[in-house]
Amino acid sequence: MTVSNRIFTRENINPNVLATKFSVRGPIVVRADEIDRNNKNNGVGPDVLFCNHGNPQELGQKPITFFRNVLSLCTSPELISCEGLRGLFKEDVFERAKQILSYVPGGQTGSYTHTQGIYTIRQKVADFIVSRDKLPYKVAPENIFLCDGASPAIQHCLKLLVKNDRSGIMTPVPQYPLYSGTIQSLGGHLVGYNLDEDQGWSLSASELERSYAEAESKGIDIRALVVINPGNPTGRVLPKESLIEVIEFCAKRGVILLADEVYQQNVYGTRPFISFTGVVEELKLTESFEMISFHSCSKGFLGECGRRGGYMHLSPAISREAIDELYKMCSIALCSNVDGQVMVDLMVDPPKVGDASYEQYVEERDAIVSALKRKAKKLVLSFGELKGVTCQESEGAMYAYPKITVPQKAVLVANERGVAADAFYCMELLETTGVCVVPGSGFGQKDGTFHFRTTFLLPEDRIDSVTSRIKNFHQDFLEKYSD
Amino acid sequence: MTVSNRIFTRENINPNVLATKFSVRGPIVVRADEIDRNNKNNGVGPDVLFCNHGNPQELGQKPITFFRNVLSLCTSPELISCEGLRGLFKEDVFERAKQILSYVPGGQTGSYTHTQGIYTIRQKVADFIVSRDKLPYKVAPENIFLCDGASPAIQHCLKLLVKNDRSGIMTPVPQYPLYSGTIQSLGGHLVGYNLDEDQGWSLSASELERSYAEAESKGIDIRALVVINPGNPTGRVLPKESLIEVIEFCAKRGVILLADEVYQQNVYGTRPFISFTGVVEELKLTESFEMISFHSCSKGFLGECGRRGGYMHLSPAISREAIDELYKMCSIALCSNVDGQVMVDLMVDPPKVGDASYEQYVEERDAIVSALKRKAKKLVLSFGELKGVTCQESEGAMYAYPKITVPQKAVLVANERGVAADAFYCMELLETTGVCVVPGSGFGQKDGTFHFRTTFLLPEDRIDSVTSRIKNFHQDFLEKYSD
Repeated sequence: MTVSNRIFTRENINPNVLATKFSVRGPIVVRADEIDRNNKNNGVGPDVLFCNHGNPQELGQKPITFFRNVLSLCTSPELISCEGLRGLFKEDVFERAKQILSYVPGGQTGSYTHTQGIYTIRQKVADFIVSRDKLPYKVAPENIFLCDGASPAIQHCLKLLVKNDRSGIMTPVPQYPLYSGTIQSLGGHLVGYNLDEDQGWSLSASELERSYAEAESKGIDIRALVVINPGNPTGRVLPKESLIEVIEFCAKRGVILLADEVYQQNVYGTRPFISFTGVVEELKLTESFEMISFHSCSKGFLGECGRRGGYMHLSPAISREAIDELYKMCSIALCSNVDGQVMVDLMVDPPKVGDASYEQYVEERDAIVSALKRKAKKLVLSFGELKGVTCQESEGAMYAYPKITVPQKAVLVANERGVAADAFYCMELLETTGVCVVPGSGFGQKDGTFHFRTTFLLPEDRIDSVTSRIKNFHQDFLEKYSD
Repeated sequence: MTVSNRIFTRENINPNVLATKFSVRGPIVVRADEIDRNNKNNGVGPDVLFCNHGNPQELGQKPITFFRNVLSLCTSPELISCEGLRGLFKEDVFERAKQILSYVPGGQTGSYTHTQGIYTIRQKVADFIVSRDKLPYKVAPENIFLCDGASPAIQHCLKLLVKNDRSGIMTPVPQYPLYSGTIQSLGGHLVGYNLDEDQGWSLSASELERSYAEAESKGIDIRALVVINPGNPTGRVLPKESLIEVIEFCAKRGVILLADEVYQQNVYGTRPFISFTGVVEELKLTESFEMISFHSCSKGFLGECGRRGGYMHLSPAISREAIDELYKMCSIALCSNVDGQVMVDLMVDPPKVGDASYEQYVEERDAIVSALKRKAKKLVLSFGELKGVTCQESEGAMYAYPKITVPQKAVLVANERGVAADAFYCMELLETTGVCVVPGSGFGQKDGTFHFRTTFLLPEDRIDSVTSRIKNFHQDFLEKYSD
């Protein structure tokens, strides 16, 4: 029998896949895992402080008790009638679990559901949007898709929108690499528009137009514009004027808006989160404005990343035929996981005043959000004290994105090693101190500037450790590579 | 402000998406849902009998108690120390939940995990494969990816393998439309090889060679071969000789094998399931044979579809660079849901002799499998009694795939309406009787033959209702359209 040489090699892999980059789980993170494993196995070295990933519960954030308790009863329904639990779980937990099971197919969270998710849960998401944005119209459950987190939902949309190799998607610089990675893997064009760091990572209509015109001059057909609000990695919460500018730009240019609003419950500054859906209605554009917005259980004070729950909302102007095509593509993998769907149910309909769990819920929620607020402030302040480092305020999300000045000597060493200067900085930081952050080159940045993204999710005492380790490292790094 | 005309229309959608078909959730199923909703709302009409979908728990199949109880403790860990539960849950449930939480990141199932899934669970999957196939070598956890069910895993692999518009994937005819749909959406070629219905849907080397040569003559570059064993929709369990033929064909032609083994625990005949991994080793080809095999929590006696748990196993010969590319693509959506990962843990490591839950587990498992066996037999026999209908034995999986003779007059009516003749038959069956099955045209069939796929998942008394409704309908249909 002839046995061929290896066939599944780089030469034989889809070139769009090869061209794809995804830094959030790239080489620095792989190395951090390795160091962590080694240190734990051998009981040596400083502990790795993982600041690379928006993964709150891994770092000690407690889940909301009510949500988890309901979910466990849905998993083992015989617990609902278990007397022994009556003291431990609050009364409304039992009621809620019964209610949810009444609309899960077959009363079992082990069933496949409708491709778009359980109808009643979609109805509740629709009601949540109406109430959040004070809309004068009803949102149709037919326009809601429950998904395994926001990421696959966004990937489905991009799959439809990248029509051919001339298709372009406008994304912010910096952006979350889900966008760049997916667009690359589909063979489309990533068309960046710059956020203005000196103005707190603000967004401007003139920059949108510049970016659009430049792409147009290259023959690129702009299909959609991505806005991440609150911003990842920037931490920016957009003011209403920016939302209006974006909407006007999209309407004028015939571009679909993808509104990534997964951090809508992570707001720490004075400026509140405002949804695009609400502003579109204020502008009386609901009938014509085509937009898809995304939300998730992974962020906010829930932090239920592992649950993979989320939804996308197609604005009323999105055509039935586009929804049908999305339905078909989502159907191929059947449906999103039911526990994730249940978590979305709980997220959009948490305990209310008067419910047995209400007080505990509010207490837990507020404790998480206020700790995040304190930690964001502390981290950003500490960066301001480092030589050659500036950091915009983190008004929202889970990240700070400081700008660092990398000495010319270090840039040269990085070049020699064939890595970006900020990747070099971050790898040195990891190797020296165990602090794991992600270089700005993975998110995009103005040419010649360097950044890194760090979360502020570690417990408060560990944040102190992060700031002191970075401080010492930074001084040594500057000295080592000074001219 | 200028408001453009609609932009997200068919004309503007990726043409590969438009060309994609996915019948399992197509128009007949949409219509069945509609009838079901109407009937329930108005309390009229016969109940819809959903036989279209391998969704056991929706149709009354009970989950395995041990699995669910462990999962609920992992969801609300405070239950582990709850005295009130001691009588209700068996002792090993508590131990197992503690054990699992010890290797979940942060001890919380709400955390993101490693892209490929939790290491210890991958280790357990690896051990399961070694033990199932009596392998003399160790399977590396690095070669296991935990996924949201097998479907997204298969889609990831196809994404890498469809390199350009000359790439072809050989799939059985009939096949499960996850394959056709995904290949179409990637712009690749679906290259069918026929299973021989008269020989119980058997597979032959000569047909593989014929199909390969035909594709080659059209300039198609065959990248991979899909085998579904036990078969969907055929119910065929492949004998070892067929596995050997497939392996020899792939080795000779330099083609990667995608082994869809999700029904490995659904076997009802005398022929046991044999895995490709085991036969590759028997043939002493492990070092060179490139194969990816898939398994899932959705099937077997678990039926935990809604959990979206599953894994893929890359054979030792798959290159590190291919694994790295798969890792990168899976990373973009971060990780599979953790409850699904936990369910994989439980599937590959169920209670053992001596464990407190063992007896109950075996009892529940055997009751489910033997009921499926009885129902498969009953359904297949009933089809044999219909005029012009033949049906091969269902040796495995969850489906029967009878061949129906559609009268010429009915074919003409179907043609006039622009639908396939079997789609017409199935739609009439649904409208007249409420029985929902999927037409063969969605799975593929020899030209001029017609089939439908039905599950045998309904409770036993409902299966009687299915057979009698189909019997009456079939007679009337033949009369109505007789020449």
